[in-house]
Amino acid sequence: MRDFLAKKVVDLKPSGIRKFFDIAKEIKGAISLGVGEPDFDTPWHIREEGIYSLEKGNTIYTSNAGLKELREEISNYMYRKYNLEYKWDTDILVTVGGSEAIDLALRAMIEPGDEVIIPMPCYVSYEPCAIMAGAKPVIINLKNENEFRLTKEELEQAITPKSKVLLINYPNNPTGATMDRIHLEEIAEVVIKHDLVVISDEIYSELSYLHSHTSIASIPKMKERTIVINGFSKSYSMTGWRLGYACGPENIIKQMTKIHQFCIMCAPTTSQYAAVEALKNGDNDVLEMRDAYNERRRYVMHRLKEMGLPCFTPKGAFYVFPDIRKFGLSSDEFALRLLNEQKVVLVPGNAFGESGEGFLRLSYAYSIDDLKIALNRVEEFVKTLKK
Amino acid sequence: MRDFLAKKVVDLKPSGIRKFFDIAKEIKGAISLGVGEPDFDTPWHIREEGIYSLEKGNTIYTSNAGLKELREEISNYMYRKYNLEYKWDTDILVTVGGSEAIDLALRAMIEPGDEVIIPMPCYVSYEPCAIMAGAKPVIINLKNENEFRLTKEELEQAITPKSKVLLINYPNNPTGATMDRIHLEEIAEVVIKHDLVVISDEIYSELSYLHSHTSIASIPKMKERTIVINGFSKSYSMTGWRLGYACGPENIIKQMTKIHQFCIMCAPTTSQYAAVEALKNGDNDVLEMRDAYNERRRYVMHRLKEMGLPCFTPKGAFYVFPDIRKFGLSSDEFALRLLNEQKVVLVPGNAFGESGEGFLRLSYAYSIDDLKIALNRVEEFVKTLKK
Repeated sequence: MRDFLAKKVVDLKPSGIRKFFDIAKEIKGAISLGVGEPDFDTPWHIREEGIYSLEKGNTIYTSNAGLKELREEISNYMYRKYNLEYKWDTDILVTVGGSEAIDLALRAMIEPGDEVIIPMPCYVSYEPCAIMAGAKPVIINLKNENEFRLTKEELEQAITPKSKVLLINYPNNPTGATMDRIHLEEIAEVVIKHDLVVISDEIYSELSYLHSHTSIASIPKMKERTIVINGFSKSYSMTGWRLGYACGPENIIKQMTKIHQFCIMCAPTTSQYAAVEALKNGDNDVLEMRDAYNERRRYVMHRLKEMGLPCFTPKGAFYVFPDIRKFGLSSDEFALRLLNEQKVVLVPGNAFGESGEGFLRLSYAYSIDDLKIALNRVEEFVKTLKK
Repeated sequence: MRDFLAKKVVDLKPSGIRKFFDIAKEIKGAISLGVGEPDFDTPWHIREEGIYSLEKGNTIYTSNAGLKELREEISNYMYRKYNLEYKWDTDILVTVGGSEAIDLALRAMIEPGDEVIIPMPCYVSYEPCAIMAGAKPVIINLKNENEFRLTKEELEQAITPKSKVLLINYPNNPTGATMDRIHLEEIAEVVIKHDLVVISDEIYSELSYLHSHTSIASIPKMKERTIVINGFSKSYSMTGWRLGYACGPENIIKQMTKIHQFCIMCAPTTSQYAAVEALKNGDNDVLEMRDAYNERRRYVMHRLKEMGLPCFTPKGAFYVFPDIRKFGLSSDEFALRLLNEQKVVLVPGNAFGESGEGFLRLSYAYSIDDLKIALNRVEEFVKTLKK
């Protein structure tokens, strides 16, 4: 029997996060600050709406692009939050989480050999999805001294005649970095000059602690060349519901919808009903959770400073990205020793790209009590290293 | 601004079903026998399990491949129904409906230019998914005189040195055709001889009215070269839940899981909890719905015979596929005139492939009362044609 597998897929490295979690699973009594998932239950009134829809027997397919009412609410949300006008019936597609939306956007646009520019460290799926779509990923190694923002110089250097897509994610997983309007304007200038299209993963948009989030699509002349990806997982603590969306130019959304129709059919119906409720009446939940994360963020930064673990102050998402280079250990070595000696799980920064080497991702989507215990242990470990 | 779209995707024809439904939407008072979706609500005890899981706050991601308990139940089901042994932890992947599973199987295996053999008429997504994965689809036009079964001669003729995948679907949408063990054995012989791999979409397996369903994977030496696709949409009336699965050789499931992890993350959590209940305690629901469909099937066939609309007797799924060639109208003409003159929606057979030309798909996933009214109208229309 021959080998039936596609080489391109076999060659994809499995997620470095998962590899590390498999090791961590074996260590009894370990405390994790590793997972990139909100620790809150989905707010009750949102779950209740899901329950009602099941009681009423709303268990059939929705239209391929998603419930009309949901797309209308997404359209309202984009306007009220980011001053962006998207028509519900042509410019919005409801997807199975932000993940599917990114995959669809790449599949709808990539011709073989097109280059997709991916600033790293970043979420683990971008590079594999680009490769699977037939693109050549071009990596930009972001720098700690820029607080992991993308600069126009870095972008200019990465551009070739084959560049087509820039895939960015701010607020960022794993660094917690954000980009203010002034920074995005510089990027937009380069994007327009080189006629690129932007896939902007804004899944952490609601978790912006200093200013409200700016979407790159709201910069003049960028809406027509940007696909904004967002969803319910992070802002409403709805990861398991698998619900996201893409907003963009009609011609691109149309092709994404076609792929979605053939490969997925529609997003889960119960989740769509719940999401309508989230957008209609969930603003306060978002604020409450954001305040809780912000408190934790400040607590974590305070503790890292106290123990002498350098870290730029992240302004978004729910991650900090401490710099461990001064200890002369690699990310893997640091994380493994921390796990074995103090039973705390942090994710090695190189799981998110080469430029994450020398850093660790610490998620603060945990209660202050858990953070306290875990950070006490990290402090002990750092003391050992300093000796 | 340049055109950012991928030609391959732009060139995909949108689903012919959808095109026809867009026309039908404009006709007031039309009765539809067009939709390929069960008319039953999801059984209450299954919905209740989804509700419990929401009440308990089980709203986070599951593992990428799906809940352990669900994969164990799928493993039990495949053994108890088809005598097939799949290990829960390596051979089973829980997906967003059967649709995602088919897309993943193709993406995991296709190298550019590989040929995927697709017998038609068939479900509308197979050919586009094959094209998007980079394959060359090779179509076999099935014949009414074979009751739309695939024959070994037809398969032999389609094979070239580039053939890699055979994608079959029995019980079939849109024809209602089934393949008995003896027919599948003949196909298996050719598949093994030419070292092909089979993607077998068995989503209608529970809707087999004469014999219980045989999976091609249960033929000796076929399990190691078959990916069985199944799910909850049709058998448990759970379309909107978006839950399916793939069972197959460990090395293929592993690569499919990797793509799924990056592009989808995991299937919806609430649906997974409900599906455990469906597999544990849903056998009677399946039987009751199957009996109801069977009653309708016999009613529809009786009516078609009475009005002189020839149709082979389908033994599976919930479709009949009457032959309208003797009226000298194309499928589109027949369907459009039936819609305009008698306000009944049937789908033109050519929406499912060239060899569906001259036929119409009639879904009997409707109440006997609705079927009666609709078929009275079809009878009136046929009378007009005969004049």
